[in-house]
Amino acid sequence: MKKYKADIIVTLKNGVRDPQGAAVDTVLKRTGVEEQAAVQTGKFFTLSVTGEDEVNAKSKLGIICEEVLSNPVLETYKVERFSEV
Amino acid sequence: MKKYKADIIVTLKNGVRDPQGAAVDTVLKRTGVEEQAAVQTGKFFTLSVTGEDEVNAKSKLGIICEEVLSNPVLETYKVERFSEV
Repeated sequence: MKKYKADIIVTLKNGVRDPQGAAVDTVLKRTGVEEQAAVQTGKFFTLSVTGEDEVNAKSKLGIICEEVLSNPVLETYKVERFSEV
Repeated sequence: MKKYKADIIVTLKNGVRDPQGAAVDTVLKRTGVEEQAAVQTGKFFTLSVTGEDEVNAKSKLGIICEEVLSNPVLETYKVERFSEV
């Protein structure tokens, strides 16, 4: 069994309202820091997955991302880093 | 004025409890997907900053990250991407 570390970024799909991002926008505008920051928020996860090989671990990671870390109706995920440890 | 896009990752400092990560760990263990996923959670932001030049925009971004996007007592941030648009 090999062990891999992965970084996952989960973001809202285009067109899905992002009230947290809008709130940060408002703060930046009101404090005069940035007029149009267009902030988009998301979630970040670091985790370990084990597998026979890279293909096996990646397919397991796909299941984890789709079924636990993100809501595929509203969100998309991106594997930002994937490396053996 | 130049415009830059930045990706920011905010994570908890070492030693700070991560109940959301622990919850995901529990789910992965209970469903038999992964025994020791050691999930760590964080926040992800994409935003635009304007500035006279890169140095100016980066220093503004530092202020935004420290004062709005993260809580420096509990969290650290990392600028994952910074590019002119």
